[in-house]
Amino acid sequence: MWTSKRFSYTSLDEAYQLIRRAVDNIKPEAEEIPIFQAYSRVLAEDIISEINIPPADISHFDGYAIKSEDTAHINKAPLTLKVIGRSFLDSEYRGEIHSGEAVYVSTGCALPKGADAVIPIESVLEKGDIIEIRRRVGKYENVTPMGSDFKKGEVVLKRGQILRAQDIKLLADMKRWHVKVFRKPKVAILSIGNELTNKIEETDIKKFNSHGLTLSILVEEAGGTPLDMGVFPDDKLSILNALKKGLERADIIATVGGASVGYKDLTWETVKEFGSEVVLRGIKVQPGRVTSMALANHRPIVILPGHIQSMLVGFYFVLLPIINHMRGLPFSYASITLRAIVSQDIPVREFKSFKRVRFVKLVERDEERVVEPLLGDSSLLSIVTKADGFIIVEEGKEMVKNGEVVNVYLVKGLSRLFAPEPGI
Amino acid sequence: MWTSKRFSYTSLDEAYQLIRRAVDNIKPEAEEIPIFQAYSRVLAEDIISEINIPPADISHFDGYAIKSEDTAHINKAPLTLKVIGRSFLDSEYRGEIHSGEAVYVSTGCALPKGADAVIPIESVLEKGDIIEIRRRVGKYENVTPMGSDFKKGEVVLKRGQILRAQDIKLLADMKRWHVKVFRKPKVAILSIGNELTNKIEETDIKKFNSHGLTLSILVEEAGGTPLDMGVFPDDKLSILNALKKGLERADIIATVGGASVGYKDLTWETVKEFGSEVVLRGIKVQPGRVTSMALANHRPIVILPGHIQSMLVGFYFVLLPIINHMRGLPFSYASITLRAIVSQDIPVREFKSFKRVRFVKLVERDEERVVEPLLGDSSLLSIVTKADGFIIVEEGKEMVKNGEVVNVYLVKGLSRLFAPEPGI
Repeated sequence: MWTSKRFSYTSLDEAYQLIRRAVDNIKPEAEEIPIFQAYSRVLAEDIISEINIPPADISHFDGYAIKSEDTAHINKAPLTLKVIGRSFLDSEYRGEIHSGEAVYVSTGCALPKGADAVIPIESVLEKGDIIEIRRRVGKYENVTPMGSDFKKGEVVLKRGQILRAQDIKLLADMKRWHVKVFRKPKVAILSIGNELTNKIEETDIKKFNSHGLTLSILVEEAGGTPLDMGVFPDDKLSILNALKKGLERADIIATVGGASVGYKDLTWETVKEFGSEVVLRGIKVQPGRVTSMALANHRPIVILPGHIQSMLVGFYFVLLPIINHMRGLPFSYASITLRAIVSQDIPVREFKSFKRVRFVKLVERDEERVVEPLLGDSSLLSIVTKADGFIIVEEGKEMVKNGEVVNVYLVKGLSRLFAPEPGI
Repeated sequence: MWTSKRFSYTSLDEAYQLIRRAVDNIKPEAEEIPIFQAYSRVLAEDIISEINIPPADISHFDGYAIKSEDTAHINKAPLTLKVIGRSFLDSEYRGEIHSGEAVYVSTGCALPKGADAVIPIESVLEKGDIIEIRRRVGKYENVTPMGSDFKKGEVVLKRGQILRAQDIKLLADMKRWHVKVFRKPKVAILSIGNELTNKIEETDIKKFNSHGLTLSILVEEAGGTPLDMGVFPDDKLSILNALKKGLERADIIATVGGASVGYKDLTWETVKEFGSEVVLRGIKVQPGRVTSMALANHRPIVILPGHIQSMLVGFYFVLLPIINHMRGLPFSYASITLRAIVSQDIPVREFKSFKRVRFVKLVERDEERVVEPLLGDSSLLSIVTKADGFIIVEEGKEMVKNGEVVNVYLVKGLSRLFAPEPGI
């Protein structure tokens, strides 16, 4: 075994600091795009409202704008008001109303001058141009005051936040047709292995590069742009060329395969010979411990292991926070987590000084979320196809006990809980 | 007010039954597509493995395949084995090993005939063609047995499940290049209102149709294909034509606006005159109570209210389960839910006989998830732009109390918790 490949496993906390420091100087870049393409992108500017929304006191209902004081003395006999006009969203009544008068207003119409309340159409009796009202109406009842939604000068969306459907709507309502967002980081995916191919017609003699495919989906879901660079054989020259090509085209390089210490594992050697600065060689998480990272030309190179579970763990703890940082989000491992109860003892004896990841299934039992372990070695895909997420077992712990409450981590692209499922 | 527009509010449970019955006969259609386009689609067939995975006993590590019995008597002196060959993924050693021999194997290589265990490369001392072993190795140690991941004949993915990254990988590993999935339902979105436009250049005199835009994003995220049919004025003829066009092109029609009982609210009237069968006129949920549904030509027509919060509630309770059903998922309201503690009393006095929806913010406090209410009328967009999800307040309840634990519903497209956020 070549000592130059040896691991010096870094604890996850330390790895987190090392990665953070490595990417801290790489500032995410902003670009201006039409809001119609901005859904799920990260804002690169604060959005300040240039107008009051609504721009006037408006009606919350279809009904009649009135002077509330007219209704102050309603007792048994109904109040009768004369309808002097009608306001619709495309043609608002311009006049003023006086005591004894009302104006029909559609939902969203500005109140005519003189009016200070709205009574809904369901609550009045209409008789031609006369309406009858039988109850008191308070000042500003059913009125949405000017600026009550957004005030002129207010910061309505913040730099660093992800744009959701309602945020895009707000931008459109404010006539902000373009918006500054952070550029999506391009992630070059290099799959390394003589046995691999990206061509279906070669799969009778070679193995289809399904890891590259999986990683592309995860990168896309994480908000990056995957560039599948293809398959490269286990020799230094082709890996060197692949790294070079990757650096030309992408912001981040992710390699899969050839990451460990075997005879044909040349990825780490080659990355080092490429003149890269080592960030970390191995992390204290199992599966996934082989995951390594370097910097070349101020670009992160993430070396992912080839076993499926290991690759996913490496993706989650190293590649995902880098993508997050470079798309303008806080550098963080955070994903959606659910609390759930463990349904049976889960022994975790190996790699006691490491954090251990275990893929789990979530089931609903008596209206509680229950964790069922899925045990098996890190090469097994079946564990992951049955899983909804994973749990993290702390260093030193040898057993997660039946009845313990744990965090279950859900990852976009991997977890089925983002949609209704048979049986849930 | 025209009585033909009157609401007859249906309880949510009853609405659920009515909608279910209405769409039950509409069977989702299947189509065959390349697996490279199948991510996030719903499987329309069970996938049965035609092979054992792995196809042979394979090595879990880079190391040496040996006969485990050779190590049975190791004591102080190391065991010495002769390396008679090397297996790589692209060139496996074809011979058999005998006592006293070892074969180098890369991770994933089949064990040569005669071998029954693997010792990792890190655990041996290599001296040319000789290796030294200093510990006992158990039978099948570091071996992944044939079929231990997937067995020939096993159902590995089930009809009705959403295809995630790892499922696509499995299909590729099984060389299933095409797969039957349910067709994405097309949802025609009709925005109704004289005041609206889809053209930016008209927004000095008209209001941009941002509701249609919002709904398109939500439909897309729900797994449907949105067809933004544009803006239609408040007259029956144009609404009739729009419905006709929608039915020609789409599986589901969703209208926004003109849904209530005002003078220019013609949507419901027109849908009925169109010859549709009424499914429900109003639901006992507030905001959102105006939401209605009909069937025309066996196609669902969902009538959504124009206030933003109301539209989102109508989307969630009526349109979303229909899309779920028509994309092959169980008919269900299920979405991802988090349990969280309410941080202050939330009064909910209105519409006591209805379920009430309240948009809320989630904050982390002392490692607990805490719900902060966002109060304000259903026309306010600011409530929704500040929200992470919503809670549902049951009928009859007038107060959600400080300290209560509630379900927070997260909806794809609306909720910010699917990604790391500043401060979390």
